[in-house]
Amino acid sequence: MSKVLMKGNEAIGEAAIRAGCLNYFAYPITPQSEVAEYLSRRMPEVGGVFLQGESEVAVGYMIFGAAGAGARVFTTSSSPGISLMSEALSYIASAQCPAVFVNIMRGGPGLGGILPSQGDYFQATKGGGHGDYRLLVLAPASVQEAVEMVMQAFPLAEKYRNPVMILGDGLIGQMMEPVEFPDHLKTEPSNKNAWATNGMDTRKSNTRNLVKSLFLDPDVLNSHNLELRAKYERMQMEDVQYETFNIDVDYVALIVSYGTQSRVCRTAIENLKQEGIEVGMVRPKTLFPFPLIPIREAASKVGCRAVMSIEMSMGQMVEDVERAVQGRCPVSWYGKCGGDVTTPEEIMETVRKTIA
Amino acid sequence: MSKVLMKGNEAIGEAAIRAGCLNYFAYPITPQSEVAEYLSRRMPEVGGVFLQGESEVAVGYMIFGAAGAGARVFTTSSSPGISLMSEALSYIASAQCPAVFVNIMRGGPGLGGILPSQGDYFQATKGGGHGDYRLLVLAPASVQEAVEMVMQAFPLAEKYRNPVMILGDGLIGQMMEPVEFPDHLKTEPSNKNAWATNGMDTRKSNTRNLVKSLFLDPDVLNSHNLELRAKYERMQMEDVQYETFNIDVDYVALIVSYGTQSRVCRTAIENLKQEGIEVGMVRPKTLFPFPLIPIREAASKVGCRAVMSIEMSMGQMVEDVERAVQGRCPVSWYGKCGGDVTTPEEIMETVRKTIA
Amino acid sequence: MSKVLMKGNEAIGEAAIRAGCLNYFAYPITPQSEVAEYLSRRMPEVGGVFLQGESEVAVGYMIFGAAGAGARVFTTSSSPGISLMSEALSYIASAQCPAVFVNIMRGGPGLGGILPSQGDYFQATKGGGHGDYRLLVLAPASVQEAVEMVMQAFPLAEKYRNPVMILGDGLIGQMMEPVEFPDHLKTEPSNKNAWATNGMDTRKSNTRNLVKSLFLDPDVLNSHNLELRAKYERMQMEDVQYETFNIDVDYVALIVSYGTQSRVCRTAIENLKQEGIEVGMVRPKTLFPFPLIPIREAASKVGCRAVMSIEMSMGQMVEDVERAVQGRCPVSWYGKCGGDVTTPEEIMETVRKTIA
Amino acid sequence: MSKVLMKGNEAIGEAAIRAGCLNYFAYPITPQSEVAEYLSRRMPEVGGVFLQGESEVAVGYMIFGAAGAGARVFTTSSSPGISLMSEALSYIASAQCPAVFVNIMRGGPGLGGILPSQGDYFQATKGGGHGDYRLLVLAPASVQEAVEMVMQAFPLAEKYRNPVMILGDGLIGQMMEPVEFPDHLKTEPSNKNAWATNGMDTRKSNTRNLVKSLFLDPDVLNSHNLELRAKYERMQMEDVQYETFNIDVDYVALIVSYGTQSRVCRTAIENLKQEGIEVGMVRPKTLFPFPLIPIREAASKVGCRAVMSIEMSMGQMVEDVERAVQGRCPVSWYGKCGGDVTTPEEIMETVRKTIA
Repeated sequence: MSKVLMKGNEAIGEAAIRAGCLNYFAYPITPQSEVAEYLSRRMPEVGGVFLQGESEVAVGYMIFGAAGAGARVFTTSSSPGISLMSEALSYIASAQCPAVFVNIMRGGPGLGGILPSQGDYFQATKGGGHGDYRLLVLAPASVQEAVEMVMQAFPLAEKYRNPVMILGDGLIGQMMEPVEFPDHLKTEPSNKNAWATNGMDTRKSNTRNLVKSLFLDPDVLNSHNLELRAKYERMQMEDVQYETFNIDVDYVALIVSYGTQSRVCRTAIENLKQEGIEVGMVRPKTLFPFPLIPIREAASKVGCRAVMSIEMSMGQMVEDVERAVQGRCPVSWYGKCGGDVTTPEEIMETVRKTIA
Repeated sequence: MSKVLMKGNEAIGEAAIRAGCLNYFAYPITPQSEVAEYLSRRMPEVGGVFLQGESEVAVGYMIFGAAGAGARVFTTSSSPGISLMSEALSYIASAQCPAVFVNIMRGGPGLGGILPSQGDYFQATKGGGHGDYRLLVLAPASVQEAVEMVMQAFPLAEKYRNPVMILGDGLIGQMMEPVEFPDHLKTEPSNKNAWATNGMDTRKSNTRNLVKSLFLDPDVLNSHNLELRAKYERMQMEDVQYETFNIDVDYVALIVSYGTQSRVCRTAIENLKQEGIEVGMVRPKTLFPFPLIPIREAASKVGCRAVMSIEMSMGQMVEDVERAVQGRCPVSWYGKCGGDVTTPEEIMETVRKTIA
Repeated sequence: MSKVLMKGNEAIGEAAIRAGCLNYFAYPITPQSEVAEYLSRRMPEVGGVFLQGESEVAVGYMIFGAAGAGARVFTTSSSPGISLMSEALSYIASAQCPAVFVNIMRGGPGLGGILPSQGDYFQATKGGGHGDYRLLVLAPASVQEAVEMVMQAFPLAEKYRNPVMILGDGLIGQMMEPVEFPDHLKTEPSNKNAWATNGMDTRKSNTRNLVKSLFLDPDVLNSHNLELRAKYERMQMEDVQYETFNIDVDYVALIVSYGTQSRVCRTAIENLKQEGIEVGMVRPKTLFPFPLIPIREAASKVGCRAVMSIEMSMGQMVEDVERAVQGRCPVSWYGKCGGDVTTPEEIMETVRKTIA
Repeated sequence: MSKVLMKGNEAIGEAAIRAGCLNYFAYPITPQSEVAEYLSRRMPEVGGVFLQGESEVAVGYMIFGAAGAGARVFTTSSSPGISLMSEALSYIASAQCPAVFVNIMRGGPGLGGILPSQGDYFQATKGGGHGDYRLLVLAPASVQEAVEMVMQAFPLAEKYRNPVMILGDGLIGQMMEPVEFPDHLKTEPSNKNAWATNGMDTRKSNTRNLVKSLFLDPDVLNSHNLELRAKYERMQMEDVQYETFNIDVDYVALIVSYGTQSRVCRTAIENLKQEGIEVGMVRPKTLFPFPLIPIREAASKVGCRAVMSIEMSMGQMVEDVERAVQGRCPVSWYGKCGGDVTTPEEIMETVRKTIA
């Protein structure tokens, strides 16, 4: 298939359909309402369901309902909307249902602004909702990657029976880029008969499946939580994704950055190379599981004097970078949060100061 | 005043009144509904307001409204209820309003169970809601300390114009202990005329105060976020609270633990001492700001071979402990989550294995 | 097509589909939840939409939305549920949108009971909601008639661009009777391009249609209300439906009764004939427009000494009967309301006493 | 006490306080939001409660809750808001709780307009909600009368343990008139210990009172409805209120009119007298119970050739007038609905045409 020029939000909607997801429930919020607009037209064409819930709280539970019945389902929202889904996210994770949540982040906290941000890193990677659970979090840096990650997200959600979040900044949603869609996913979830509610239809399954998050017995709840923990450790072993840049040279500093911010960092790194300053970069593509080992190794390289977490937030990923680096180098943060993306010049200046 | 024997939940309610807080909005949820029950009787006696909202989402915004008008206000809830307040917490933090939230945690995620847990550590300390904000988080280890922390919480919230969370496990709420109440707080918030909405009453203030969380201009939002960041750094400088135990001896291992779990750790440490094994402990009383430096120093002590984060959660505080320790010692996690508290024997066995 | 044995609630659902209505939004309530159950299976089979709203308030506005877009749409509920739709009914009537509401009445007021009743006569015929509007109200006396009335209801709603209500007692919904379905309605609403919202699609219409109920200018609102009034008078001229029984003999008393209650009255009339007492009956099939003239004429017949309104309510239709009779005979009420249907014996005894 | 010049809406609020009602729950809507504004200030001064509900649906049930606990409670709203309270009104009536509802009517149906109307006559007098129940409906024609009727409403609600509605057009709420307040009502409801929920406080009552509207047994529900019916008949016997004007002369036509519309009718009648045309008037002050007998008698007077129901609605009260007149004279309707009040000239012209 050839490339088409598409806005990120629309490409995300189309990608979900090609991933075999025919159920989309959402409540509009800037800067990702175009997904809903696109799918309100597109879902009926492919026999799918578009449903606007009466609030994000309701949408969260609609997702739970559909996922619990074994249907592929997803929603898209932006920062405050995701907060309203926090309780449902915790329920879905506890009940081990696969579902995909897309958060096209806007500036926060509160109403904040409607321009791009990465301010929801903590919310996405550390839980947001209550209790011991994790989301598998994918962070695209281009429209093409957003499409691919949406299409990965459904099989990953089904592999782990866990919600997956696509964490994109507003630029991902709003910019137009040429995009090529992978082939349609062909299969439906292979294992759903084993766990999803099936209306007691014995043609589908001989088991009476029960989807729930209530475990009143403390031993049972502890075992359940250990099972979840084992799953999150398995993610850490099997599904860490990251990309490196300029890592084969002898660099004096290492940047860790993700999403569209990392594209600006690339430009800064290329420019600094012209000045004779070598800087490496590790870009996490999964924010949870976080590429702790690759960053630790990159920070341990002889000659590396500083690690910088460059974020469109006020110092969130930097905590995971600190955990990765384990004191091998000084770790610092640089960033902005409000809508403006840090420029290559600002990054270059920060690198110069940091290594000075 | 002499000691009275009181259930934790009731003591928390009484402490808020003595802290001069006459506004309590809540929605009942086990295991803290006794606070609402107690205050539904007690608030009218002292001329205060008890109001049950129609949901936790509503309660969050009732708190925002009262706090924005300069009134001392608080709520209590338990894990899922706090998730439903996530959006409001982000709004209140962004709008810089003082308010106190008490989370008597139950086992999670999802509906989980109704027995004690510390599973909401991440939610409390890393945000929960969207965007760059922090709660100041106090973690009591006894009913007496719960009372004292509630009474500290209001002045701290007003000092920083930021929500403060009391993070207690269900044991704090349910157990009865003798408690002595400090003197009533006498003053009302001293600075509210400078920022709270005042109905344009020029007798109260000549300024037209505006309480909001919307900042559409990216420069303004970035500045706002830098201002918030500076505030959170100030908390880290001025208001870290912690307690040490058995730290003056030469210990081979360091435990970090908080809340009622830390009381069990004390017993284990005392028992291990009988066996000739010395173990130190740092107990954070503030979870944010986290006592990074004291733990780093304690972990750096000659002879200390291991640091253990012992939690009633599946490995949450351990991430902050890792950040504190910076690779000086191996850091490990031990815990349970579901309602049963780890026993001294289990902790002793874990310590023995870890140092082996 | 041959007869099938069907429960009334299911037959009502099937009739709507055969009337070309593929949109059903509802919230379950006894004694008509079988309609929702049936259509949740049946609508997907015919490419229609079944959607359970989050409350009856929401359902009312979902109906408004679909109707305003020119789609055939209906809901079913029972007494308290219809009360919750009162505001929406008033909006839909004001905005002149066609829609069908089925009320399978249960005993009231309040929660009342779940057995049959006719207690919502006033609510259906006099408005329920605020302002000057009327519903066209059809009252079936058998499952077969319920089917036919549902199939009439859509064209009537479209003829008048007004909500139509099917007012059935719980017996209609719960009993099984042999039923024959008329042919499918073939056409879609013929005139919707002239008034329904069309997304500004100029292929469908050159007019920019606006569906609204707000008219701030008093002259415009008065004209609007006069237009509605003219429509309700036209209903009174063109669409009164009723049935007579034993009206060709010289009767001493006239019964007015509707719905399944009228079937019991028939038995009583037949039994009284054996005793030599002749009683006539007019059964309104439309409750609004009410058959004022036929009842007036029947009450004016020489020898008729009394008119009795026999209802499963505490005296509601009797007021319209009084208006019809205009003092020509004494008018009295007899009835029960709570679930038990008046027996033939009770009716016979009442007639004997009344004419005595 | 001397007269003060007050806006109707404020006078209504003050009157409720003087009637000993210290509980006011409401949701704002034009043209009566001034009541809420006034009471939000005034209730705290007198130790009362002002609470804005999250919707009119909620307000209806807040009223039920307070009334069921034996507290004097009222709300004010306007047409669409009353529709949203329909279900609660039916519950409150069924559960036999005293409460006062004020409806300052605006033009309808639907959103309609915000100017005065009498379009909710049917809704108020025939039920609105489902099932067999009635409201006692008082219709003031001046601000002074509004005050007096509010103060009557509470004792009447308690006498009958039934909701009472004050039905005022928007003029009553918006106009300023000199008003004199009657003395404060001194006693609290005398009989509440016999029926209201009392928290099982045996100092208050030895009975375990249960407030409910659910009666699943058909005999019990029928008896309950007969009890309600007997109560409504007692209202008809004991509490009909009306006023006559120009009734002692030999008039050729009789006007029935209520509320501020009746004041315009007075002027028209006085003007017609100058022309030598005598017209009588009966003004119902209670719309339910309706003054059927006084109107019947007035219509029966020798020489009276026509009865006219003059309403700010499209023909609602005219149905009760028809029931009253029983064919003794022709009954006709004249009115407007949209915000403009019919002028004396228009009424005079209508009278002239009618008697011609």
